[in-house]
Amino acid sequence: MSLQRFISEAISPWMKQSGPDDDIVLSSRIRLARNIEKYTFPILTYQNEGEEVLNQIRQQVDNSHPNKLELLLMKDLEQIEKQVLVEKHLISPHLASDSSFGAVLLSEDESVSIMINEEDHIRIQCLSSGLRLQEVLENANRFDDWLEEKNDFAFDEKRGYLTSCPTNVGTGMRASVMMHLPALVLTQQLNHIIPAINQLGLVVRGIYGEGSEALGNLFQISNQITLGKSETDIVEDLKSVVLQLIERERLARQMLLQNSKIQLEDRLYRSYGVLKNCRIIDSKEAAKCLSDVRLGIDLSLIGGVSRTILNELMILTQPGFLQQYAGELLGPDQRDIRRAAIIRETLKLKEISDEERGGSQK
Amino acid sequence: MSLQRFISEAISPWMKQSGPDDDIVLSSRIRLARNIEKYTFPILTYQNEGEEVLNQIRQQVDNSHPNKLELLLMKDLEQIEKQVLVEKHLISPHLASDSSFGAVLLSEDESVSIMINEEDHIRIQCLSSGLRLQEVLENANRFDDWLEEKNDFAFDEKRGYLTSCPTNVGTGMRASVMMHLPALVLTQQLNHIIPAINQLGLVVRGIYGEGSEALGNLFQISNQITLGKSETDIVEDLKSVVLQLIERERLARQMLLQNSKIQLEDRLYRSYGVLKNCRIIDSKEAAKCLSDVRLGIDLSLIGGVSRTILNELMILTQPGFLQQYAGELLGPDQRDIRRAAIIRETLKLKEISDEERGGSQK
Repeated sequence: MSLQRFISEAISPWMKQSGPDDDIVLSSRIRLARNIEKYTFPILTYQNEGEEVLNQIRQQVDNSHPNKLELLLMKDLEQIEKQVLVEKHLISPHLASDSSFGAVLLSEDESVSIMINEEDHIRIQCLSSGLRLQEVLENANRFDDWLEEKNDFAFDEKRGYLTSCPTNVGTGMRASVMMHLPALVLTQQLNHIIPAINQLGLVVRGIYGEGSEALGNLFQISNQITLGKSETDIVEDLKSVVLQLIERERLARQMLLQNSKIQLEDRLYRSYGVLKNCRIIDSKEAAKCLSDVRLGIDLSLIGGVSRTILNELMILTQPGFLQQYAGELLGPDQRDIRRAAIIRETLKLKEISDEERGGSQK
Repeated sequence: MSLQRFISEAISPWMKQSGPDDDIVLSSRIRLARNIEKYTFPILTYQNEGEEVLNQIRQQVDNSHPNKLELLLMKDLEQIEKQVLVEKHLISPHLASDSSFGAVLLSEDESVSIMINEEDHIRIQCLSSGLRLQEVLENANRFDDWLEEKNDFAFDEKRGYLTSCPTNVGTGMRASVMMHLPALVLTQQLNHIIPAINQLGLVVRGIYGEGSEALGNLFQISNQITLGKSETDIVEDLKSVVLQLIERERLARQMLLQNSKIQLEDRLYRSYGVLKNCRIIDSKEAAKCLSDVRLGIDLSLIGGVSRTILNELMILTQPGFLQQYAGELLGPDQRDIRRAAIIRETLKLKEISDEERGGSQK
């Protein structure tokens, strides 16, 4: 069963690839929102229209798409399975929670996910590791072109692509990067930087956190504006801000290394010690420790652990994955115990496989 | 050089022996205070008298003592060397700080230490692992008898042995046990127990801590009264209280295991993780973590680590030992870094040697 593949591994195959500046930029993402002209937009859609949209795209994919795309129907999935796909960012919480005719098309390496009957009829999402917005945009455009050949998209000469939510009208595009910015947080610089980024029409959000809190020092930077600028311009503007953030994060890391190396090492290794030894851990503490260990790896202070550990364990320790792994529904206390066990086991496996490969641990 | 032997190893050979109830009682100790009648007591002594006392006992030991005792003269020792002997409880801070003719006679296994020209002319100290007050008293008595054969001790028919401080008059004996009571502290029972113990004429003190604070949940229980009771009665009364404390500590440990095993395991393993990973640690945190790890070993929750680790590292991480080990004087910040390094290295060595012995780690 192909679903199994998507929900058994925490990190998607594309995440294992290296990419430009991937010590700081974990991933680049482009999302295009499209609607088929002849159907009512999903927010107003009657059931039978949703079914027609789904069937139409389904046939097109079955018949002709060159890349192998796997179709998963939301109605066929268990609650926990949908939650796992949300935690892997392969579908949105919206698609998981409410859509009798919702579906997603996934590429084998999970770098392409096309949601059907989400807030819009079609939402194309392409992902890549590192800072590679331009390539990801090109990839998204290919899928967009292919779908546009077969469907008349709702499009206005003046306004551009029409979408359910007015904030997406125009390009229908949301470009974003996920960044790991521990040194800017630790040196308390990010608080001052975020307002400046907002003024440039970009949004900074923590991921996996409640509200504005950023778990694991992971931040998503994305464009706010979809109208009046070309896709390429939006991507270029975002990229230039991201490059500046990368530079500042690197400077902050060097500053920490120079001014307080032993204090930094102490902090990062203690977090590593917590992860390897705890028996109970909540997601907030786990995220903090994982961020610390990842920083330790990036600064060559911690050896013998794979770099993708942060990505993998951040996803593995989310509630859906924990329950999927446990094979049962778990209360919060049980999840904290299970989370600790998964982290310990994963780190142990990683260390063993590194030792077998002849890697040494500092 | 024999001094080297005494100051290079943190734990004395006798500490490595097992003893009754040594999961809770780390050691039993008897100290006898004696003075030679013909000389003024040390608090009033003129220099030449101190020298005579030292020479007299020195000759007696050289000529006739069956056990091999090593004589160390305080004036021959560096400040750091004396501090190390204090941290091993082989001499008192008083002897280390102020005595031109102070000396100590040490047995090879360090279970016997006879201080000369401390607060009294002679202070015989005998130690043993576990709860073995009676045997230790017998051993102390042997040394006392041997010295009394050769010296006229200041003795009053009515009052007993006369000492510099009136609190020691009578038997001149202080009997004490060092106990590890983490579960009574964790369950907040000890606060209520201590006043009751005090009412029985016994004193409870934390060791290595400032004032009454007990570092590492280690407590010394000793007799307050030296007058009007025989040595055997004092030792029996102390023993009966200690046995009750052991029982309560065991009950508290079982209660913790039954009611909150996973929380306990989490706490103990996190402490283990801190010790294995920290780069900076103060003596207070180190003591807390060492106590946790020792409790984990005693409860079979933590495997692969030697039980004597608490005793050894509690002593190794004291300022004197740290500096002796570093070969230089260290400020507090430097000590915290050095302490972390010693703890990590010691635990690593212990784990490796356990693995070699085929021991497994949980």
